Amino acid sequence: MEIYCTLSFPGLAKKPLQLSLDTDVVYKSENGHVIKLNIETNDTTLLLENTTFVTFKASRYSVSPDLKYVLLAYDVKQIFHYSYTASYVIYNIHTREVWELNPPEVEDSVLQYAAWGVQGQQLIYIFENNIYYQPDIKSSSLRLTSSGKEGVIFNGIADWLYEEELLHSHIAHWWSPDGERLAFLMINDSLVPNMVIPRFTGALYPKGKQYPYPKAGQVNPTIKLYVVNLYGPTHTLELMPPDSFKSREYYITMVKWVSNTKTVVRWLNRPQNISILTVCETTTGACSRKYEMTSDTWLSKQNEEPVFSRDGSKFFMTVPVKQGGRGEFHHIAMFLVQSKSEQITVRHLTSGNWEVIKILAYDEATQKIYFLSTETSPRGRQLYSASTEGLLNRQCISCNFMKEQCTYFGASFSPMNQHFILFCKGPGVPMVSLHSTDNPAKYFILESNSMLKEAILKKKIVKSEIKMLHIDDYELPLQLSFPKDFTDRNQYALLLIMDEEPGGQLVTDKFHIDWDSVLVDTDNVILARFDGRGSGFQGLKILQEIHRRLGSVEVKDQIAAVKFLLKQPYIDSKRLSIFGKGYGGYIASMILKSDEKLFKCGSVIAPITDLKLYASAFSERYLGMPSKEESTYQASSVLHNIHGLKEENILIIHGTADTKVHFQHSAELIKHLIKAGVNYTMQVYPDEGHNVSEKSKYHLYSTILRFFSDCLKEEISVLPQEPEEDE
Amino acid sequence: MEIYCTLSFPGLAKKPLQLSLDTDVVYKSENGHVIKLNIETNDTTLLLENTTFVTFKASRYSVSPDLKYVLLAYDVKQIFHYSYTASYVIYNIHTREVWELNPPEVEDSVLQYAAWGVQGQQLIYIFENNIYYQPDIKSSSLRLTSSGKEGVIFNGIADWLYEEELLHSHIAHWWSPDGERLAFLMINDSLVPNMVIPRFTGALYPKGKQYPYPKAGQVNPTIKLYVVNLYGPTHTLELMPPDSFKSREYYITMVKWVSNTKTVVRWLNRPQNISILTVCETTTGACSRKYEMTSDTWLSKQNEEPVFSRDGSKFFMTVPVKQGGRGEFHHIAMFLVQSKSEQITVRHLTSGNWEVIKILAYDEATQKIYFLSTETSPRGRQLYSASTEGLLNRQCISCNFMKEQCTYFGASFSPMNQHFILFCKGPGVPMVSLHSTDNPAKYFILESNSMLKEAILKKKIVKSEIKMLHIDDYELPLQLSFPKDFTDRNQYALLLIMDEEPGGQLVTDKFHIDWDSVLVDTDNVILARFDGRGSGFQGLKILQEIHRRLGSVEVKDQIAAVKFLLKQPYIDSKRLSIFGKGYGGYIASMILKSDEKLFKCGSVIAPITDLKLYASAFSERYLGMPSKEESTYQASSVLHNIHGLKEENILIIHGTADTKVHFQHSAELIKHLIKAGVNYTMQVYPDEGHNVSEKSKYHLYSTILRFFSDCLKEEISVLPQEPEEDE
Repeated sequence: MEIYCTLSFPGLAKKPLQLSLDTDVVYKSENGHVIKLNIETNDTTLLLENTTFVTFKASRYSVSPDLKYVLLAYDVKQIFHYSYTASYVIYNIHTREVWELNPPEVEDSVLQYAAWGVQGQQLIYIFENNIYYQPDIKSSSLRLTSSGKEGVIFNGIADWLYEEELLHSHIAHWWSPDGERLAFLMINDSLVPNMVIPRFTGALYPKGKQYPYPKAGQVNPTIKLYVVNLYGPTHTLELMPPDSFKSREYYITMVKWVSNTKTVVRWLNRPQNISILTVCETTTGACSRKYEMTSDTWLSKQNEEPVFSRDGSKFFMTVPVKQGGRGEFHHIAMFLVQSKSEQITVRHLTSGNWEVIKILAYDEATQKIYFLSTETSPRGRQLYSASTEGLLNRQCISCNFMKEQCTYFGASFSPMNQHFILFCKGPGVPMVSLHSTDNPAKYFILESNSMLKEAILKKKIVKSEIKMLHIDDYELPLQLSFPKDFTDRNQYALLLIMDEEPGGQLVTDKFHIDWDSVLVDTDNVILARFDGRGSGFQGLKILQEIHRRLGSVEVKDQIAAVKFLLKQPYIDSKRLSIFGKGYGGYIASMILKSDEKLFKCGSVIAPITDLKLYASAFSERYLGMPSKEESTYQASSVLHNIHGLKEENILIIHGTADTKVHFQHSAELIKHLIKAGVNYTMQVYPDEGHNVSEKSKYHLYSTILRFFSDCLKEEISVLPQEPEEDE
Repeated sequence: MEIYCTLSFPGLAKKPLQLSLDTDVVYKSENGHVIKLNIETNDTTLLLENTTFVTFKASRYSVSPDLKYVLLAYDVKQIFHYSYTASYVIYNIHTREVWELNPPEVEDSVLQYAAWGVQGQQLIYIFENNIYYQPDIKSSSLRLTSSGKEGVIFNGIADWLYEEELLHSHIAHWWSPDGERLAFLMINDSLVPNMVIPRFTGALYPKGKQYPYPKAGQVNPTIKLYVVNLYGPTHTLELMPPDSFKSREYYITMVKWVSNTKTVVRWLNRPQNISILTVCETTTGACSRKYEMTSDTWLSKQNEEPVFSRDGSKFFMTVPVKQGGRGEFHHIAMFLVQSKSEQITVRHLTSGNWEVIKILAYDEATQKIYFLSTETSPRGRQLYSASTEGLLNRQCISCNFMKEQCTYFGASFSPMNQHFILFCKGPGVPMVSLHSTDNPAKYFILESNSMLKEAILKKKIVKSEIKMLHIDDYELPLQLSFPKDFTDRNQYALLLIMDEEPGGQLVTDKFHIDWDSVLVDTDNVILARFDGRGSGFQGLKILQEIHRRLGSVEVKDQIAAVKFLLKQPYIDSKRLSIFGKGYGGYIASMILKSDEKLFKCGSVIAPITDLKLYASAFSERYLGMPSKEESTYQASSVLHNIHGLKEENILIIHGTADTKVHFQHSAELIKHLIKAGVNYTMQVYPDEGHNVSEKSKYHLYSTILRFFSDCLKEEISVLPQEPEEDE
């Protein structure tokens, strides 16, 4: 069945861009060469030929800060969401000499991490949960930690919980700007229960693997933050949590160097409603608290890195600011530290019914702050600058850039803020451009995605429309994608798509093409995406509505959206369907289970079915610790009152080696469905994870498409329909 | 969907019958009471009220040899095919006193086995792989072995391989007739690789379990046979294998006491083509070889117990006897042991193109031998007697008993051969009767299955017909079951059903009612069962055709049967389907994979997909040890050239905790299907075994029935749709 168009962004998504100096950009060109571009002269230098990747079977690379060497990773094997193991070689760009990167006295090692430092040829790598350091590629390795133990003590690298739910990265170490110090986390999972992931294929006697995974209410890992100095005799110092956290359980959610000796650290208590920002002097280990946040619900944006002025006398960070009846929105606050008293005064730099998404840079010379915000539209992201003085003049930098094609941007500034890269992410085909900060209109296209653009032109264009629904005092956006030949005199099937995470956003200007686009195109299905309560970037009030009500308000809002749609003449009420993955699979299941029998069918991938079985940091954020009575958790469980699922046609998809949402969730669901005598269809991907492998994707997409296509096809009408003339 | 009729044999199948003395029969009546029937007087005594089972939540019982106590098992949990763990109480029939049965210094124990001995109140039980003995219910337990270790050393109880593939029982110990000695196996699995069975449900962190399971070519368990005397100081003696086996790998497939001090033992080499029968003097440990069998293929009937005369001077056993061009058939041989020379002379008591199924008894007084055979029809089983002297006069005992209803019998003789129980198993509704050996026409009905009979009468009667097909010099039976209103002027869909094991028999006179009966009844599907090459009870030639060609000749024959059917006017060639479980699922998959694209759909339950992943004793029996080149195993694998499966619609069903055919088989199949882009439907039963639990059966049956019903339904002719105008 050749119905899925496999469009992809040629190289773009996977292409690391290094804006290392203010004058150079290193990037991988469309034909796979690694190129250095001199911004000022526009000269390009070939650093690495594309054939080098083939020679070493390398799939990842990075160029040393001195641009002399390349670190090439091969045999890359995904572990969790971000983490992977690999073997590495160091490649000399000029001599083409090659070294294997191995810990002392180990051959053919498989490393958990390897990367250049920030200066010269500094190298860091992680092996068996210990950190190793090499001052340059010729010198021998220095082991910086010795406590590392597989599955127990993690140094410089995250365990599952920190990677997936807290840091959103597997990297748990941070270089000081001069490369003389390294801050790293030591995560201790020795008391955390282990989850077993079975294995079924690939061996006569396949062995499962286990890893620490704290489910709701279970023992969490403990965490310590250390700084080690790398020059002279190595010396490791622990940075202590604030006094009020010392006897409590807490997370560390952010570490950043603000000078060569100072770090800023965010500590968050286990219930995730108190967070303390401290600045630590890493030469003494003394930390001073700079800002404390509390919340009646839970604190969001805990990974945000404050932007510091060079002398550390001020820093910028977003904080929730109340905007009348519409509740709090994230806005930039400037924190001024009095040098003697250490007292802090706060000045709010922005305000309004919109959100600051990310603070990107502070330019000392102009005293301007650069950031992304939703000021023009909650669905867009534009690059702004604002003065930090006087009238705080705010200016949109990206608003006039490729207006038609681009309203959703990402951006990245060069170290000295002389240049920035704009990532146009939609609504048109994504592109990447390099701009001069002084004169943003002067730019250079790094990636035009011309191949994708051409491919798209050959496809039917999906028309999209946003309707604002009024629910409980909120104005919430519903996005509809219509088939090309849509006319409201016909009736269409509908697919309602759930978001994958709470606090996310489905209705945006981001370019998007996936299996669902095929459904619109070939099956004339209308797609609906609705950001109800619990969704993000529209102020904290909407987001926080799900506190202690996860799986209830979202269900209500999605149903309200469907009921609105049922009033539209072009929706065939007998052909409604729903789709969701992970948390989205959870919400979809809860909707299908509800008393409102609106849907003919639904498909869920790797659905969370009971939050007690899911990660502590996630479940507790929304539902608190599970209590003995467990009414909150029970009420939110799909497995409770499963009989509600009786009438629909359900397709459940799950990889048996899913380390995020365990196959356990679907197994419990199926067991309950079997017991209740409910029919369903199942697709199991043996030994596949939360995201199925490339080689199974085609099967996954055709399974989903066939399911919805079968379910949503028009009933064969006895009388042939006379197509009416129009236009 | 209420389409499955849940008929069951009221109590019968699960009802143990004890014919302990020649005068008494103990059985559980239809209302659940345990009754002692005096055969001579026809008096009945109530031993145990049905309420006692409820009180103790007991699901199994046995009455002590002295009829004074009952052993009640509760918390019964199935392990493998036959084995289960349980807790036990001993119940005094007269005083209603109760004792827990526990090993010394253990409370609330869970036992692997517990049973009465053969005399008085002798008790034996197995705990943590060690055997315990109690001379009577009051005395303290004696531990007979100490080497037992969970999952490693098994005393008196079988490991997985012995239970499933060799003994076909979990019991690996045998009482001497006087109860003074016990023979037992010690099975050592310490070098056998362990298979992990994952667990998905029932706990926050479900733990898998592992157990020794030798796959084809892997290390097998080693085995020793001991005899322990129970009176006086216990003394354990090993019975040694024949010299020629001492340095080879071997199995023990049969142990039986032939007198109070002598046992007969069958030893089988690992390739299963040499077997030696020895008689061992358990007081000295000396064994003498009585009979050696060899085969060019493999030896069958290795569990058969020879029947000895009381003085041990002769014994009876079936041996393959050549019957002209039709090859060998199993017939009774009488072995006469010369008392002095120990020389043995053999006399063949039966012959013909039919099989002796089982030798039941030898009556010393009349010198008659009693046995079951297929003399009247290969599909039937009748009870015969034959004289062991003179003209060997043979007489059918059961042939005239309930002629219409019964042509397939089982039988069991009382210790002194004065009575026997006839188990009529079909073609009518099964029944059980007690007969006098002197006058078999004098009988007493123990179970008439009146409830089932009544229920059946309300159902449509399925008409059945047997056609003999001529394939490669063989006449092979094809059984067709027709819907009630069948007429050969209509066209019908067909379901071809595979047998579960090689050497089995599908076309028999046995009463049978299952989900497939529903398909005939409600969907007007014709069922076909065909005993091709590889099937049993029609001589060894047909059976042994699969040697080294497993998965090839069976496929050819089944396809030949289908091609024969396609010539019948009443078969709709567009609506053919196939079903199989275990080995049957393997053959069904191989047929679907073959170049002949005859079937519209097929369903397989727990299919073997690669014999390298299956049990050593099974795979090696048919295919030998896997060699390095592995051409035999590869050719027989479903996974090889999987693309052949492309065109059919397949439903794969598997329990994830299947300890016989691991879920691994289906996982590998799916993985290969996904890779090849083949569509299929899957039904997973989380944490269920090879046979799904009672509570999932309804779901299983409706899943299969829905699948075949959907696949086999007649195409509804649709008026051609008017093509839409292009604008």
